[in-house]
Amino acid sequence: MAAAAPPVVPSSPTPSRWATSAADEALRRCDELAECSETPQGLLRRALTPAMREAHVKTRAWAEAAGLDVRIDALGNLRARREGPAGSRTLLIGSHLDTVRDAGRYDGPLGVVIGLAVAEALRHESLPFGLEIAGISDEEGVRFGRPFLGSRALAGTIDADDLALRDADGVTLAEAIARFEGGGSVEACAITPAELLAYLEVHIEQGPVLESLDQPIGVVSGIAGHVWRSYVLEGRAGHAGTTPMGLRRDALAAAAELALFVERLATETPELVATVGQLVASPGGNNVIAGLAEVQVDVRSVDASVLAKALATLDAEAKALASRRGVRMSASDRFASPPVVCAPALRNTLEACVRRVGLDAHTLASGAGHDGRILATLGPVGMLFVRSPEGLSHHPDERVHATDVALALDVTLDFVRALGARIASEGRLS
Amino acid sequence: MAAAAPPVVPSSPTPSRWATSAADEALRRCDELAECSETPQGLLRRALTPAMREAHVKTRAWAEAAGLDVRIDALGNLRARREGPAGSRTLLIGSHLDTVRDAGRYDGPLGVVIGLAVAEALRHESLPFGLEIAGISDEEGVRFGRPFLGSRALAGTIDADDLALRDADGVTLAEAIARFEGGGSVEACAITPAELLAYLEVHIEQGPVLESLDQPIGVVSGIAGHVWRSYVLEGRAGHAGTTPMGLRRDALAAAAELALFVERLATETPELVATVGQLVASPGGNNVIAGLAEVQVDVRSVDASVLAKALATLDAEAKALASRRGVRMSASDRFASPPVVCAPALRNTLEACVRRVGLDAHTLASGAGHDGRILATLGPVGMLFVRSPEGLSHHPDERVHATDVALALDVTLDFVRALGARIASEGRLS
Repeated sequence: MAAAAPPVVPSSPTPSRWATSAADEALRRCDELAECSETPQGLLRRALTPAMREAHVKTRAWAEAAGLDVRIDALGNLRARREGPAGSRTLLIGSHLDTVRDAGRYDGPLGVVIGLAVAEALRHESLPFGLEIAGISDEEGVRFGRPFLGSRALAGTIDADDLALRDADGVTLAEAIARFEGGGSVEACAITPAELLAYLEVHIEQGPVLESLDQPIGVVSGIAGHVWRSYVLEGRAGHAGTTPMGLRRDALAAAAELALFVERLATETPELVATVGQLVASPGGNNVIAGLAEVQVDVRSVDASVLAKALATLDAEAKALASRRGVRMSASDRFASPPVVCAPALRNTLEACVRRVGLDAHTLASGAGHDGRILATLGPVGMLFVRSPEGLSHHPDERVHATDVALALDVTLDFVRALGARIASEGRLS
Repeated sequence: MAAAAPPVVPSSPTPSRWATSAADEALRRCDELAECSETPQGLLRRALTPAMREAHVKTRAWAEAAGLDVRIDALGNLRARREGPAGSRTLLIGSHLDTVRDAGRYDGPLGVVIGLAVAEALRHESLPFGLEIAGISDEEGVRFGRPFLGSRALAGTIDADDLALRDADGVTLAEAIARFEGGGSVEACAITPAELLAYLEVHIEQGPVLESLDQPIGVVSGIAGHVWRSYVLEGRAGHAGTTPMGLRRDALAAAAELALFVERLATETPELVATVGQLVASPGGNNVIAGLAEVQVDVRSVDASVLAKALATLDAEAKALASRRGVRMSASDRFASPPVVCAPALRNTLEACVRRVGLDAHTLASGAGHDGRILATLGPVGMLFVRSPEGLSHHPDERVHATDVALALDVTLDFVRALGARIASEGRLS
């Protein structure tokens, strides 16, 4: 590693005095939560573990100090709530409290402590809806190998297959739930679409876009749809010395051509990223022409039609280059998840709030998955990204600038008030 | 495997009655030698093993029937010899008797049995030079991990480092030599440049060129120079979802671009083949942009200047694309061997002989290495290739057409006579 340089905090508008102070407290709380780890060296906090219970003890205290009623549901989601008027819906603000292995301290917890700070600021204001701050138990999927278990409990979609998942010690999700004694049934975790007004999540960007634009925060347009498509190219293995170039059917060269096409297509297509992270050729000798190669393409777009068109274009190019090269091609998907569009009403409101703190309202898509992907099945979802210095994520050196957090606090508080005003006057979001 | 189709023997000129009969016998001898194997399933015959001793017993009997004096030298080369006039040089004809694992039966032995058949045919003719048929003990390098040990003994370049090489059982080359009891010292294996008139080897092509041209045999122009150059490309790893295309430094994409350039350069450059047989990217996850990639390029040409120019062009392109992509590049050679040019005098004579049997004299370079690479340090080398059906090599299904072998026999016999006539009349090759 390079020697540590003094941190550079880019210039930005001045947050409110409340937000400046609340940001310091929020970062302190992230530090405190980072102490709740399963591993002494390097942060790891998975769902339904003693480390998560420690995190709950701290979070519960902060929530209760903000005047919220706290319960831990069966799946281990912390739910800190103030009721709204009779028959009103609930504004859910949150993020996840679980981490990857050797994690940073902001991916997830930052959104929870920002929610708590805003709830505390609003403690003595009336709101025309219920407000619930959620510390979601499992987004990363590290413990049971399947992500979004916490938000899927909120969405009411945990099934027997999920409950039979086992962690590395052979403990099933059902057993972990029973041991954790959160409270209530798995079914009782669920929020219905009729109950949910909206879900708002503040999260670090985990990428370099906002930093490259010198933007402290950004409004998320949506969560990218995501497909892993595997292309298998079958040519003919041969001797690297005795096979003339014109008589080859080189599977690796075909794969390289496809990988470059993936890069070019994504570079030329707005709202698309696509990646080939490995290229496996067989037999894989330096002096043997590859007879077989596999290219696994990670394709993402927030726009379902862009994603579908990109995949069709890739298929057509793979077919064309295979035909031109006398190579057989087959494609199959290992994973596919459609895009989620952030609700325009929430996005517009967030943009207005961002402009009110004196920033340009920059909009960007989330390439990574988030709990909003699941909660969008229940109701409108909005997301705010906080700049990630150096784009670092899933890394112990993950950071945030305190000023950026303060601006996010100002925006979030303004957003809840704006939503309150709209519901009070119009009775609905838009 | 596909169901066996009836063998298709392409049309070609009719060999002499002698050659037709000698080819049948040569192929029968290759079958017999294939019985001499270290492994019950699949042919394996390494230098200085009991299986090689069995092969020597059979080969000695055939050589003695042809009127040759046989000795096994210290390195385990079988040397079957008739003396020439006092003070004359030696025409060496041969190939190797060792095999790869799970080998075919013609790669090596075919050249030895053809040499014996020709020596037998010439038994009662006088020649102005000595004739020695060599069954070389180690060309493939399977036992000690270093090829050409047999021909290097003939060239007198076996050194202490070679003698200390160990096989898979920990037996050194020195110990294997002592146990095999070939005879004489390692030094006594050597032929001097003053003794060697020429070396001629008949070998299967191991590639698809002659078959694609419908040519039974071809004259070898030279043995390709061969370099393994490794290009390491260092970019920056990143999240496949959150890193925009414009902010990437993708090492795999850089490697793919280089691999395609390798293919294009070799396709557009006469007398050049170049291959990327594997492309290793790190960290190698489907959802992670590769931060590091290595491309190992196998480059071969029979023309030293073509080889050097190709390597310089590759270096320049690797540097340019690395610079364009913001990726660091370094290159290093794992292996380098210069080309060997077959002696024009021998090549011209072989071409004339090929035409005399009624064929076009097709010339081709050898992309694979052969003992001639070593023996060229002693004197002029000529090689004749026999068509490899389907280009198969180093494979149990390796085949030859009997008619092709017969034509090679006619050419080889004619070649020895032509060389005899030239030496008798001019006293030298050219």
